[in-house]
Amino acid sequence: MPDFILYNSLTREEQTIQLIQPGHLRFYSCGPTVYSYAHIGNFRTFLTADLVVRTAEALGWQVTYVTNITDVGHLTDDDHADALGEDKMAKALRSKEGELFANVWDLARFYTDAFVEEWEQLNLRKPFVRPRATEHMREQIEAIQTLIKTGHAYETPDAVYFSVPSFKAYGQLSGNTRADALEEGVRDVVKDTNKQDPRDFALWKKDDKHLMQWFSPWGWGFPGWHLECSVMAMKYLGETFDIHGGGEDLAFPHHECEIAQSEALTGKPFANYWVHTRFLQVEGQKMSKSLGNFYRVKDLVAPNAEGGKGFDPLALRLSLLSGHYGKPFNFTIQNLKDAAKIVRRYQDAWDLVEGILHSDKPSGTDFLGKRLNENYDAILLAMTQNLNTPEALAKAHAGQKMIQGALSGMGKEAAKQASKWFQKVNALLGFIRRERTLQETNDTTDAEVEVAQALAQLIDTARSQKDFARADAIRTDLLQKGFEVRTTKEGSKVTKKIS
Amino acid sequence: MPDFILYNSLTREEQTIQLIQPGHLRFYSCGPTVYSYAHIGNFRTFLTADLVVRTAEALGWQVTYVTNITDVGHLTDDDHADALGEDKMAKALRSKEGELFANVWDLARFYTDAFVEEWEQLNLRKPFVRPRATEHMREQIEAIQTLIKTGHAYETPDAVYFSVPSFKAYGQLSGNTRADALEEGVRDVVKDTNKQDPRDFALWKKDDKHLMQWFSPWGWGFPGWHLECSVMAMKYLGETFDIHGGGEDLAFPHHECEIAQSEALTGKPFANYWVHTRFLQVEGQKMSKSLGNFYRVKDLVAPNAEGGKGFDPLALRLSLLSGHYGKPFNFTIQNLKDAAKIVRRYQDAWDLVEGILHSDKPSGTDFLGKRLNENYDAILLAMTQNLNTPEALAKAHAGQKMIQGALSGMGKEAAKQASKWFQKVNALLGFIRRERTLQETNDTTDAEVEVAQALAQLIDTARSQKDFARADAIRTDLLQKGFEVRTTKEGSKVTKKIS
Repeated sequence: MPDFILYNSLTREEQTIQLIQPGHLRFYSCGPTVYSYAHIGNFRTFLTADLVVRTAEALGWQVTYVTNITDVGHLTDDDHADALGEDKMAKALRSKEGELFANVWDLARFYTDAFVEEWEQLNLRKPFVRPRATEHMREQIEAIQTLIKTGHAYETPDAVYFSVPSFKAYGQLSGNTRADALEEGVRDVVKDTNKQDPRDFALWKKDDKHLMQWFSPWGWGFPGWHLECSVMAMKYLGETFDIHGGGEDLAFPHHECEIAQSEALTGKPFANYWVHTRFLQVEGQKMSKSLGNFYRVKDLVAPNAEGGKGFDPLALRLSLLSGHYGKPFNFTIQNLKDAAKIVRRYQDAWDLVEGILHSDKPSGTDFLGKRLNENYDAILLAMTQNLNTPEALAKAHAGQKMIQGALSGMGKEAAKQASKWFQKVNALLGFIRRERTLQETNDTTDAEVEVAQALAQLIDTARSQKDFARADAIRTDLLQKGFEVRTTKEGSKVTKKIS
Repeated sequence: MPDFILYNSLTREEQTIQLIQPGHLRFYSCGPTVYSYAHIGNFRTFLTADLVVRTAEALGWQVTYVTNITDVGHLTDDDHADALGEDKMAKALRSKEGELFANVWDLARFYTDAFVEEWEQLNLRKPFVRPRATEHMREQIEAIQTLIKTGHAYETPDAVYFSVPSFKAYGQLSGNTRADALEEGVRDVVKDTNKQDPRDFALWKKDDKHLMQWFSPWGWGFPGWHLECSVMAMKYLGETFDIHGGGEDLAFPHHECEIAQSEALTGKPFANYWVHTRFLQVEGQKMSKSLGNFYRVKDLVAPNAEGGKGFDPLALRLSLLSGHYGKPFNFTIQNLKDAAKIVRRYQDAWDLVEGILHSDKPSGTDFLGKRLNENYDAILLAMTQNLNTPEALAKAHAGQKMIQGALSGMGKEAAKQASKWFQKVNALLGFIRRERTLQETNDTTDAEVEVAQALAQLIDTARSQKDFARADAIRTDLLQKGFEVRTTKEGSKVTKKIS
């Protein structure tokens, strides 16, 4: 297997990923704030995270993938969590659409559900956990208590601040170290004269009028935005983990602050590698509602009758894949149209291949296997080279053409190889077919099957930990519940026994 | 319109509902604790609540319907919130199925989603809000602070208790007033020697090992179970509201404690009418997993291939409707089979009626309208007489037979009346067809349509408040967003304009 090389924003160079625990990637990627719909620029970042996960899986690694939901509205002027700006959720609730929610929690839940739905449409891998900021309040409060105790934070009448001067390495990620450098980036900041350093940022805001509030040792209030990612990442991935991802706009101050808080808390490195996805433009311009070029996934994929443009979500996925995450991406409708044709071509060819496999055609010879394996290896290699999706797609298109050209004379032996190639390419790049879970194919609302499927994944975890007794126990339990367990390339899968 | 008469558990007599605000019913009904699946006995209680709502709607009342989700696991020995029993969520998380959740919040979310899905299958009305206990922590903490301040509660090293002797009317609902009467019902209670009266119940448990915890003026811990319903009911319905519902097992101690807390807080009556649904047996026995007669909705309605019994959820609804909520109900599979046949008969007849309406048959005469209107009035009358569903169903079956017998000679005029009858009966009893929302018919995941539909409901609210300017403004806004607004019997509905 090739090395997995990523550009590390922290060291500003491409590096080979050295896992903390060999064979097991621990990965955190920043998710959305759910006060409105995520746009396709946000989803480009989530797609990068998905590619990190899929490439790692293709290398045979176990992946623990965590991506959060910010359901505490951070301030509208979220460049600086110390700004006394307006809470985004409060603003959303006061808007026209907000009127229909009985409370701010329902608003957050509504946009969370919309987000997860678009996530699934884009065939993005389901994370191990999608922790919510509101559900990790104890961890946040305790982190602040520790930071105060160790001299990294202090309380004022308005807030608790992290003391930037107390953390020498501040600025290592963004290069922003001096107070004046930070000041330049500050907009509309209402100064708190009790702040000891202009760079200090809020860990806790005292505010008993905020819509979402918690009681704390500092009275009623809510946590600063940066804190949630620190405590949730460390809770599920450990004090030091491998990769942390997010959009480039998050590098400063969000990620810089995450590092400061986390490393001040533990005295250990926080994340070893940082991956930032660059911004997206639409038709050469910044997306904006006034220009009419502001797209959420649904705008592009919903049927025409419902006001959408009716594209296959996988075409959108392919379109986003066509640019390298480390460069700004110019999204165009023309590119999306082209992508739709390409996706269709792959889907049709795959269907024909499956048709041959299930026909009574003669076996023929395997004249494709070797070339297709080499082709797949080249695709995987490109992905391990800093997620080089343009290169990976070029190779994939060559492979697809190879199969296309061979279709007319293809027997079952060659079709078997072609089918395998489609499966592997789809597992890695995910744009040909949505990988359906059992839940979807049987009954989109079948909770028990989902439970069983999740249990089946625990079999794989147990095996990877060489705990075979536990793996067997889970399998026996599933059998008793009426499920059969199959071992597949994607791990253990369940099927409901037909009674 | 007839009076709405309900048996009021508080006064132990049937009473005519006198609304606090004429024409507007404010109704709270206790929802499930989401540490596992709800069973059909629970759903019988939720169905009673649904019938209160539908009957009120049929009388032309506006309804604000609130039903909670208990997502803080209350203690396993939940007869007494002061028992140092085990937390139900913690127990669920330690179980086999629990292993697959990354945290207790995901477990609660999983069972909440499963619950809402079955709720929809049974065609139960969507509440105005489904508040979560975890999302109303501030209200609970502030209520405790007030109760301490006014001498109704006191702190011990382990908890904050409500002082039952401080509230003279304790026992008015259940009749349980004396300490010894309560002691009899107590199982496995680990005594807190700091309790001043054995009847005192916990408002806050101090416990820094509990899975879900909040910081409070009394340190880390979590609220007692009873408190959430008090604060959430009053938040959304006012300090005094009309009707409070729940299963009969909740009358004591849960509802008795709700009344004590709430009335001690406000000095006003809490709920004017209390409606309790009696228990359900299966085949003459208590439901239990060991007897193999323990059913959740899904067990009965999922396809055979998925391990279910494949019944139409509406047949289950009809089966549950066949018993009066105020009497124990003996659920049998035979009853369910019979119900399935009846539901099918209604559906077929309705289809035939619609067929005539959309055919080129002659108009004919309206020989049915008067009799069907009288029949519907009799059904509604039965429902207003303490939700007499057996009587309402008997009348409905007679109406259905009347239509059935008239089908062969039916022209469009008569069909119009028959169609109207089916619509009205379905709106009231809900067992013939699931009332689909626009969201379902167009795109089950279309968040925008749902937003628009909810906005359309605000038009009705604005109109009922005679705020016509606001109603118009919302309609204009919807038009601009590409929705048409139709006024229907069920209120304003939106349709996406086909572009």
